[in-house]
Amino acid sequence: MEKTIAVLPGDGIGPEVTEAAVKVLKSIAMRYGHTFHWKFAEIGGAAVDHAGSPLPKETIEACEASDAILLGAVGGPKWDNNPAEQRPEKGLLNIRKHFDLFANVRPVKAVPALLGSSPLKEEIAREVDMVIVRELTGGLYFGEPKRHNEKSAVDTLVYTRAEIERIVDQAFEMARSRRGKLTSVDKANVLESSKLWRKVVEERKAGYPDVEVEHMLVDAAAMKLITNPRAFDVMVTENMFGDILSDEGSVITGSLGMLPSASIRSDGFGLYEPVHGSAPDIAGQNKANPSAAMLSAAMMLRQSFEMDSEASAIEEAVMSVLDDGYCTGDLSACGNKVISTERFVEKVIEEL
Amino acid sequence: MEKTIAVLPGDGIGPEVTEAAVKVLKSIAMRYGHTFHWKFAEIGGAAVDHAGSPLPKETIEACEASDAILLGAVGGPKWDNNPAEQRPEKGLLNIRKHFDLFANVRPVKAVPALLGSSPLKEEIAREVDMVIVRELTGGLYFGEPKRHNEKSAVDTLVYTRAEIERIVDQAFEMARSRRGKLTSVDKANVLESSKLWRKVVEERKAGYPDVEVEHMLVDAAAMKLITNPRAFDVMVTENMFGDILSDEGSVITGSLGMLPSASIRSDGFGLYEPVHGSAPDIAGQNKANPSAAMLSAAMMLRQSFEMDSEASAIEEAVMSVLDDGYCTGDLSACGNKVISTERFVEKVIEEL
Ligand SMILES: CC(C)[C@H](C(=O)O)[C@@H](O)C(=O)O
Ligand SMILES: CC(C)[C@H](C(=O)O)[C@@H](O)C(=O)O
Repeated sequence: MEKTIAVLPGDGIGPEVTEAAVKVLKSIAMRYGHTFHWKFAEIGGAAVDHAGSPLPKETIEACEASDAILLGAVGGPKWDNNPAEQRPEKGLLNIRKHFDLFANVRPVKAVPALLGSSPLKEEIAREVDMVIVRELTGGLYFGEPKRHNEKSAVDTLVYTRAEIERIVDQAFEMARSRRGKLTSVDKANVLESSKLWRKVVEERKAGYPDVEVEHMLVDAAAMKLITNPRAFDVMVTENMFGDILSDEGSVITGSLGMLPSASIRSDGFGLYEPVHGSAPDIAGQNKANPSAAMLSAAMMLRQSFEMDSEASAIEEAVMSVLDDGYCTGDLSACGNKVISTERFVEKVIEEL
Repeated sequence: MEKTIAVLPGDGIGPEVTEAAVKVLKSIAMRYGHTFHWKFAEIGGAAVDHAGSPLPKETIEACEASDAILLGAVGGPKWDNNPAEQRPEKGLLNIRKHFDLFANVRPVKAVPALLGSSPLKEEIAREVDMVIVRELTGGLYFGEPKRHNEKSAVDTLVYTRAEIERIVDQAFEMARSRRGKLTSVDKANVLESSKLWRKVVEERKAGYPDVEVEHMLVDAAAMKLITNPRAFDVMVTENMFGDILSDEGSVITGSLGMLPSASIRSDGFGLYEPVHGSAPDIAGQNKANPSAAMLSAAMMLRQSFEMDSEASAIEEAVMSVLDDGYCTGDLSACGNKVISTERFVEKVIEEL
């Protein structure tokens, strides 16, 4: 197959981990006879510095001419005091909205070799294997009115039925392809938007008789993610709740440095990025863990290009390097073989 | 001193744990020469059943004629499908709003005897000692417009400067009386209300030069509560974030059954209730842990009545019974002396 991939390295460790992912993808292309075309472009702080905007027009055009987007990370102290429109995160928010990437998919999977670095007791973190599906282009993030002055402030949590339906359907499909359980998280005892959300879930479930559905309040979900995360298979929730719960979920297994994410729309186009962020403190030191970026590339192959075996090959290669006790300097718990980012990538490519 | 206390037992285990708290308060009154008058009234599901409303007029009147409110818990499956105005939680929301109880104060403190039941590794949960201060009468919970129909839904996150100032001041005062650190949690990179919130915190801090202030995004806070909860002293945040984070915080030390809470206003009037909820599955079995209710009574003595030594006496008595290895049947990890709710109360009173 022939595919065009937009690569947006971004800030901090973004460039080094993206480079790792690109190397692995090149190796996959060779092995499986695919042709990948690359479109490198800027986003986040780097784009603010060079082009005056966190999401320059050239970047949008590069993405529009591509079949999927691979992103590193955005943000850093350098831009923390910029005005809102010149902040790195704005690039992320704008690209999601521009491309209508309404579904953020975040798998949380315990990695046996890393359980030691989980903050949870091992018997709780062990075998956690869930996916958080977060609505990404609606709710409090974008609703109007949205303004503040010296005296008061307002944000608006608004959802249309159609917006809820498409994310809920996405989550049902995902649950169906996994263990068949869907937990819909809302605050239906307080929020009107949650009442509509719950209604839609109840209606759509008729179309998925093979999926077991439960409703959970967001406060209860925040507790259960810690006390019994294994109870979850697929969780679906609105944008703001999803922001909080997916970050909470990202630390429970101790494998934050391993977690990929996808932000997709219905036609298969999507943006793939590691969960970990730009980690400016270790940027440029050749010690960032490139696993999450490589696993994000694997997600891209599977979800946007339907290259299942290629995706699995990457996933297995990464796990096998970890199982051999290798890790990068930013992981506190691993075997005792600490190697550089570059060396880690070579090992993964050897395993492929 | 002479004080009038409104007692609202509510649903599930509410009545049994409230009875425990009242017993302990009676014993305190005797020992310290106080006179407590009691006004019992209904709230929640029990009130819906008997008076057709989760917060009947008589209950409001009883509270208005009192110096503080002691509440058990509300809710249960029996009322889950009631229309919104007839649901137990509505009683809680209405009483908060009616009495302007804008500050929800939730201490989270690791209890050494219970660390074994923490989902976190002991080295992380050990010595956690923080207070979450949640704004309780504003934001998404009450903002208008707030409605849904078949096609769309809206909730409104609105705050006035005055609402933010009073909760932030409350939290600064609390930090000053503790370890002098305040973490203000918001989502200033996305929400306009958070921008005003952050501004107000920045302004008010001039009045508290002895308090160190940090701002943290809500997603980062959700992670740090798990990875390093000891880093927090006082956390302050808006209503919806506070709902999620305080429940997340309530499970990290394994001592949910021990956690009290206060919902107060500036003049000292307040509502005190255990965090744990109504636990309908174990109601009426004489096995609920009454500690949180007794510790809520202690909070009431300290915060509403300025009876510091009386409050400490209760707290020490409860801890000492636990340290002796006693616990009720609902605690998974404790010494091996499981006793009934009533017996536990007797033990605490003996210790007083
Ligand atoms: C950077 C920020 C705007 C963003 C969000 O809140 O969506 C981030 O936290 C995320 O989860 O991707
Ligand atoms: C019952 C519910 C309305 C309430 C809230 O969300 O405030 C509860 O979760 C709490 O935290 O006291």
